[in-house]
Amino acid sequence: MTATPLGPGNEFDRIRAIATALGQAGSGLGDDCAFLPDGWCASTDVSNEGVHFRREWLSSREIGWRAAMAALSDLAAVAATPAGVLVALSTPSSEPIESLVELMAGVGAAAMACQSTVVGGDLSTGGALSLAVTVLGRAERPVRRVGARPGDGLWVTGMLGGARAALRSWQGGREPPPAARARFARPMARIREASWLASRGATAMIDLSDGLAGDAHHLARASGVGLAVDLEAIPVDPAVAGAEPWRDAAAGGEDYELLVTLPPTFAAGEQLVVETGTRLTRIGTVTTPPQVDFAWRGTPLTFAGYDHFR
Amino acid sequence: MTATPLGPGNEFDRIRAIATALGQAGSGLGDDCAFLPDGWCASTDVSNEGVHFRREWLSSREIGWRAAMAALSDLAAVAATPAGVLVALSTPSSEPIESLVELMAGVGAAAMACQSTVVGGDLSTGGALSLAVTVLGRAERPVRRVGARPGDGLWVTGMLGGARAALRSWQGGREPPPAARARFARPMARIREASWLASRGATAMIDLSDGLAGDAHHLARASGVGLAVDLEAIPVDPAVAGAEPWRDAAAGGEDYELLVTLPPTFAAGEQLVVETGTRLTRIGTVTTPPQVDFAWRGTPLTFAGYDHFR
Repeated sequence: MTATPLGPGNEFDRIRAIATALGQAGSGLGDDCAFLPDGWCASTDVSNEGVHFRREWLSSREIGWRAAMAALSDLAAVAATPAGVLVALSTPSSEPIESLVELMAGVGAAAMACQSTVVGGDLSTGGALSLAVTVLGRAERPVRRVGARPGDGLWVTGMLGGARAALRSWQGGREPPPAARARFARPMARIREASWLASRGATAMIDLSDGLAGDAHHLARASGVGLAVDLEAIPVDPAVAGAEPWRDAAAGGEDYELLVTLPPTFAAGEQLVVETGTRLTRIGTVTTPPQVDFAWRGTPLTFAGYDHFR
Repeated sequence: MTATPLGPGNEFDRIRAIATALGQAGSGLGDDCAFLPDGWCASTDVSNEGVHFRREWLSSREIGWRAAMAALSDLAAVAATPAGVLVALSTPSSEPIESLVELMAGVGAAAMACQSTVVGGDLSTGGALSLAVTVLGRAERPVRRVGARPGDGLWVTGMLGGARAALRSWQGGREPPPAARARFARPMARIREASWLASRGATAMIDLSDGLAGDAHHLARASGVGLAVDLEAIPVDPAVAGAEPWRDAAAGGEDYELLVTLPPTFAAGEQLVVETGTRLTRIGTVTTPPQVDFAWRGTPLTFAGYDHFR
């Protein structure tokens, strides 16, 4: 089996052990999507109550939207166009029919926002609420985690840390500021932006689901390169508070922005705002030694991403 | 939205409400698979601990195998050839890495048994063990639930009731007989059989996941026809005990056999045994009035399939 190498972490140790055990029964694991014949690609992403969200934080419709967008973001990560969404929805047997309808209306709205539809699903009872969302797409010009070259620029879409700011508020018993709450409850998969980046020669890409600190390692490991990240260049969401807001912006996941490498000659970041309304900011450079170096104005710093099995 | 009509039941009332709410955001819901361009099709199927299986009944490898085969059976139901398996696996955070490896080895073995591989997945923590398996396939000559015509013969592959016999033993606190246990723990999706049936002109097909009593209604409703089922003709698994074993064979689900309608002229059921080792038995006829009639030697009887939201 030829799996794309992953970065460090207990969760990824488990995925590595599984890939090894699968042997010939697994193929092409380790990227954001599975690549199939005819330009088709697919990805699956699960959202579990108590792990990815709590019911008291979000409405049923927001839970559905967010679960679908987290999966659709994997299509954005490879510059694919969505072609269909499937949902395996598990709820307690007492779940009111109105709640099921709202959950799926949220999934449907997210699919529509990405020019797609819900094409299938499965409904079952289970202990807690769980949505396993599978997305199918077409990628004429896929961009993978593999492909970054030393000298390429390292760029990021949008602003980081908003989702984590909301999470911090809820965990502290406070309702988050509306802007931060919206970043967590209503993320938007960067489908159009990804297509634009692919057309500008993007060499490697990944979506920031576990946070820049962790996902940068996956991209570097997959491409067999290093990354030098300038923390002071990170576009920090205004909703992020604290003395060193860039820390949350770098370590916080679930913003579903794109981390992308572009040829050294690329400098037209402002064109993405003009065409899609989304910022594109250079935050570093692809290097040769296989390591990820974070620095704040030249001073090295260490970070870790989110790990399900910490 | 043009959804394929479903049979009666609380679970299906919920699916109908969801399909209505999705409106334009849903498309083609209600068959065993979603049908996509270029002959691609996809289906998702979830297996939850405490609902679909218990850990004390099955090994981790069997849990993985069974979850994958339940999903692969949806490809068989439309006569598709598997092209890839994705798994969203949720486990308690305390799940040993060896158990994760065994679960996925079971999924991988099931995929390989159907000439496919695991192409992607997601690993997350959650309350109970849950496997949401998505299967992708190609169907050059798909057979759907829609298409049965009055006068067609109604046929079923294999033998029915074995999985339910195992379930009854476990629920009664006994270890099932080995043959019944194997039917529950190691089902086999009827991929080859489905392809054979499609080539013989199958007009409509469904896999028996909820049981003949329930699934027959889905096929009839989708095709806008009736079905007359001769209960005495049902091939009952020898593992089924009791005074009226055909009751369990008709009402029990999860055998993952195929219910198929074939042209009136088709009579070569024994050829399937010769070519695949799987029996093919005629159990009734497609009729005009839109209802499903079960009869034992001419005497009408009533049944219901499994319903998650009874």
